[in-house]
Amino acid sequence: MLCAYSHQTLSAKNAIALDKDLMSIGAFSIDQLMELAGLSVSQAVYRLHPLGKGKRILIACGPGNNGGDGLVAARHLSHYGYQPIIYYPKQSKNELYQRLVTQLKNLDVPFTEDFQSALRESHHVVDAIFGFSFSGDVREPFPSVIEALKTTSLPVTSVDAPSSWDIEEGPPKSGPGKDFHPTALVSLTAPKPLVKWFKGRHFLGGRFLSPEIAGKYNLDLPEYSGIDQIVELGPSGQKL
Amino acid sequence: MLCAYSHQTLSAKNAIALDKDLMSIGAFSIDQLMELAGLSVSQAVYRLHPLGKGKRILIACGPGNNGGDGLVAARHLSHYGYQPIIYYPKQSKNELYQRLVTQLKNLDVPFTEDFQSALRESHHVVDAIFGFSFSGDVREPFPSVIEALKTTSLPVTSVDAPSSWDIEEGPPKSGPGKDFHPTALVSLTAPKPLVKWFKGRHFLGGRFLSPEIAGKYNLDLPEYSGIDQIVELGPSGQKL
Repeated sequence: MLCAYSHQTLSAKNAIALDKDLMSIGAFSIDQLMELAGLSVSQAVYRLHPLGKGKRILIACGPGNNGGDGLVAARHLSHYGYQPIIYYPKQSKNELYQRLVTQLKNLDVPFTEDFQSALRESHHVVDAIFGFSFSGDVREPFPSVIEALKTTSLPVTSVDAPSSWDIEEGPPKSGPGKDFHPTALVSLTAPKPLVKWFKGRHFLGGRFLSPEIAGKYNLDLPEYSGIDQIVELGPSGQKL
Repeated sequence: MLCAYSHQTLSAKNAIALDKDLMSIGAFSIDQLMELAGLSVSQAVYRLHPLGKGKRILIACGPGNNGGDGLVAARHLSHYGYQPIIYYPKQSKNELYQRLVTQLKNLDVPFTEDFQSALRESHHVVDAIFGFSFSGDVREPFPSVIEALKTTSLPVTSVDAPSSWDIEEGPPKSGPGKDFHPTALVSLTAPKPLVKWFKGRHFLGGRFLSPEIAGKYNLDLPEYSGIDQIVELGPSGQKL
């Protein structure tokens, strides 16, 4: 049976395996991949929320790679002329993440510990809390953050997955993420099965996949245009 | 006296010092900087030579960082739909460069040892042989390559410096680079004094400078637009 997103999604297990392949077979460093992933996210925000619609972008960063993508996106958004503000309550001690934080501080990008107050002063929110490796429960302090993302009237752009959604089963049946439906989603490298439950604007980013790795995971993805680092997808996963 | 490019160029010594600052004060890894520099070069080639004008881009890479920028640019150009071909006769054993080569081979980008034959089959050439740290003599096998770049009727885009030009004194008075005037130049981070002798189309790339580092070197550079990783400069260094 041919259905929407057939040949276009990566299971949770395959997403983890493909990520490893990018660094082994693909010979990419995590620095390179995160730079290009964050650049894609920044381009999606620019397209969804042009500078004239308000410059204050609140970026909620989780403790892992999804948060790192958010930190990189924030740097690019700052260069574009936005005023990002970062909520990053569980900062990694990993050297790469510490460098990404320093890069933002060098651009005078502020960090906040008060998500709710920052939300009230923002124009757009980026959800870079959990990505393709998420499973299980949402730990503190993120339940109230996801609750706020669900109820805010601001547009919310999720990175790789709406945080708290199951990668394969989509929106949770209970907990803070129940009925959390972000405005937009930027799938990185390839969409995950959760996109079947997602109804907002959907972008693909991470323009670094080789034919060999795409073939290994039976991925047949839409083509990017020109120099774009993102491509917008329609409800069946086709290029818009 | 106010002259063209005052407050906009970096001496050879300062270019080396600023590069170190980007990695210390700036907290960037070489992977990040090279990724963004190469991305800038790829965007300049896309603007100078749209896909419809011919896809075959010959990229001549030197042994150092300038060559690395060329390798990254080649990868992005391949993703855009060009058919890059790489001349990289003095390959670094450094792990980063080896990974950049693998990334290209994974995209089936060919490498050639015969620059002259590749030149005859190409539509545009990228000169990524020597950059801001060049001084002294052009060593083998590059004299004949620069001679060919000088006499070819194809457009040539140089990365950071026309190869063999003195960073501060511009075109050499003798040797293969005498009278070498490339079609376009992509200055990375900031123009070098040699731009005073350059008459072609001039782009600035490397959108990662913080106000602190720019201030330290008394740089007052034109602003980039939107999500562009390059900005085109006029004859006095102003934004076009």
